Amino acid sequence: MSDTLDLACDLIRRRSVTPDDAGCQRLIQERLEALGFKPEWMRFNDVTNLWARRGDNGPLLAFAGHTDVVPTGPEARWSSPPFEPTIRDGLLYGRGAADMKGSIAAFITALERFVDRHPDHDGSIALLITSDEEGPSVDGTVRVVEVLEQRCEKIDWCLVGEPSSEARVGDIIKNGRRGSLNGRLTVRGRQGHVAYPHKAANPIHLLGPALVELGARHWDDGNEAFPPTTFQISNINGGTGATNVIPGEVDLLFNLRFSTEWTAEQLQAEIVAILDRHQLDYAIDWTVSARPFVTAEGALVEATAGAIKEATGNAPTLSTAGGTSDGRFIAPTGAQVVELGPVNASIHQIDEHVSVSDLDTLSVIYEGVLRRLIAPPSTS
Amino acid sequence: MSDTLDLACDLIRRRSVTPDDAGCQRLIQERLEALGFKPEWMRFNDVTNLWARRGDNGPLLAFAGHTDVVPTGPEARWSSPPFEPTIRDGLLYGRGAADMKGSIAAFITALERFVDRHPDHDGSIALLITSDEEGPSVDGTVRVVEVLEQRCEKIDWCLVGEPSSEARVGDIIKNGRRGSLNGRLTVRGRQGHVAYPHKAANPIHLLGPALVELGARHWDDGNEAFPPTTFQISNINGGTGATNVIPGEVDLLFNLRFSTEWTAEQLQAEIVAILDRHQLDYAIDWTVSARPFVTAEGALVEATAGAIKEATGNAPTLSTAGGTSDGRFIAPTGAQVVELGPVNASIHQIDEHVSVSDLDTLSVIYEGVLRRLIAPPSTS
Repeated sequence: MSDTLDLACDLIRRRSVTPDDAGCQRLIQERLEALGFKPEWMRFNDVTNLWARRGDNGPLLAFAGHTDVVPTGPEARWSSPPFEPTIRDGLLYGRGAADMKGSIAAFITALERFVDRHPDHDGSIALLITSDEEGPSVDGTVRVVEVLEQRCEKIDWCLVGEPSSEARVGDIIKNGRRGSLNGRLTVRGRQGHVAYPHKAANPIHLLGPALVELGARHWDDGNEAFPPTTFQISNINGGTGATNVIPGEVDLLFNLRFSTEWTAEQLQAEIVAILDRHQLDYAIDWTVSARPFVTAEGALVEATAGAIKEATGNAPTLSTAGGTSDGRFIAPTGAQVVELGPVNASIHQIDEHVSVSDLDTLSVIYEGVLRRLIAPPSTS
Repeated sequence: MSDTLDLACDLIRRRSVTPDDAGCQRLIQERLEALGFKPEWMRFNDVTNLWARRGDNGPLLAFAGHTDVVPTGPEARWSSPPFEPTIRDGLLYGRGAADMKGSIAAFITALERFVDRHPDHDGSIALLITSDEEGPSVDGTVRVVEVLEQRCEKIDWCLVGEPSSEARVGDIIKNGRRGSLNGRLTVRGRQGHVAYPHKAANPIHLLGPALVELGARHWDDGNEAFPPTTFQISNINGGTGATNVIPGEVDLLFNLRFSTEWTAEQLQAEIVAILDRHQLDYAIDWTVSARPFVTAEGALVEATAGAIKEATGNAPTLSTAGGTSDGRFIAPTGAQVVELGPVNASIHQIDEHVSVSDLDTLSVIYEGVLRRLIAPPSTS
């Protein structure tokens, strides 16, 4: 067993379904303390967060991640129990193997080798680990970042260990994420009997033209870092169930995944303008789930790409596609942020797994990032 | 107490909520048998129907109606108990007072006076009474009409006692009804994640243009007897409840109230053509709740209008507006059909009521219709 695999197995054995950390962070804390990190617990409600730093100077390179995992689904459908790490055909099976206990194990072993070789590295290193990434994300990374900002502790470079890879480890670096804006729309009409439509106002009919315009609208062409902005209605509900009643209102949920060509506020104004132009009577609630961020070029992207090339022989592709991650909370502080982790094909599924050799490769890549960014000049 | 009011009270006392007749028809049968009517019970499942005829020759004038009533709703909200007929300020309160035990009482007293004066009337008179008009309408009038057709017993004129009047008794004769066509539509797309819309096909978005076209379509201008055909979506439902999932399909219920400018089959073909033109993947189920019918001019409309003018001093208006009635089952046999009954403002509501004097007026009107249509020539 490699050190990385060994630690990944220890972490998988802990049933840390969101927001329960189940002792994972204690294990991490012990390993980091032995390396001279100064651990700090930041607990908010039922969420456990660990911030551990080595060094007092800048620049600060932080590794970020989460110990919580999504629920297993029906355990009987797993080929082996989800919290009993099991190796078959070179793959490590278990809930969290790829998302993201494997990455955390690779962080730790990379740090152990790096600190051993460079005890007097430049700047500082930190780990930011939460137990609330898969859940509401209210008392996790976002709260830790608030504390750091209050005391003017600034992250310069942040590598998030989310499973970014698609076909093989290191093929994709996520160097940003789209924004995500949710709208909850109620369009009001006037309830009535279908036999007397002139005495009613059917909100489903009234909505029609605005629905078509919103669905067909070209929002932008995207840009170098982002695909085009998209709009999707996820839910629509109107009607009493009776076949002879025109409903009084119709409810919609919609979501935009948006590029840096828009701010959330600009999108809200645009949608309100469309609804107003169609003279609808409506109410709308907005939730900005994520603002878009991007780390275009710079030392972090360069170091990560270089470390990948060195470890795998292949150059990575930059991408901002996909869902959201805790990087959205760190990027607004001005930090450069990239995400790099194992292949994501099995995450959130039955029989989640990660390649055992990929764990070792990841550890080498993370060490390469450390070396490129903060090894003393004479040794890097 | 007038005879009509007396009988109306006797009927209201019987808790004949659909499909329970609660002995109402037995009361009617006894009164009719005393007049020389030949009663026939036609029971289908839990529905009681009474067909009672006086005379063997044509033409046949039938009075049609129902003894069943809709549920009372919370009885405590009634000013007086719904099955205890109560007179206040000239109004008779009770469930069924207006819809339509009052009309049935007026039928009977009109027949009693008419037969007393014209025992040797022309043609025949019949009563068709069901206990399933307010319910599914499966084992009621439609089944009686089937039996009559099988034995070639033909109704020439049918007066349905439904509460047709709006402001005052006799102001409106319903001389037809619109058709009613229900569609249950499922538009299929391809489920997916809102972050990857290019891998999905949003059925709500796909539906949009067809929804606009259907909602905006001008179906017809109506005609002399009918208002324009209308299309209304009563229910729309799509989505899993999650904000990040594009649903696989969206379901709609819609209804058309249609004039004689269309058949139900023509409307179905037109809607299918619209959905096909928008290249939708869909499934659709149709239910023809009612086909439109109209009794334009003729002896029955003339006799009814004349009887109203004589009894009230006012000429009635012909209308085909509103919901459906059992007239839809009788008209297709070739019968002339009109509906005339008391003011409908309180039907199906708490504190349903009818004007006591309107009951007597109705009885006079019904007698006038009998006299105009089948009194022997010398006496009419």
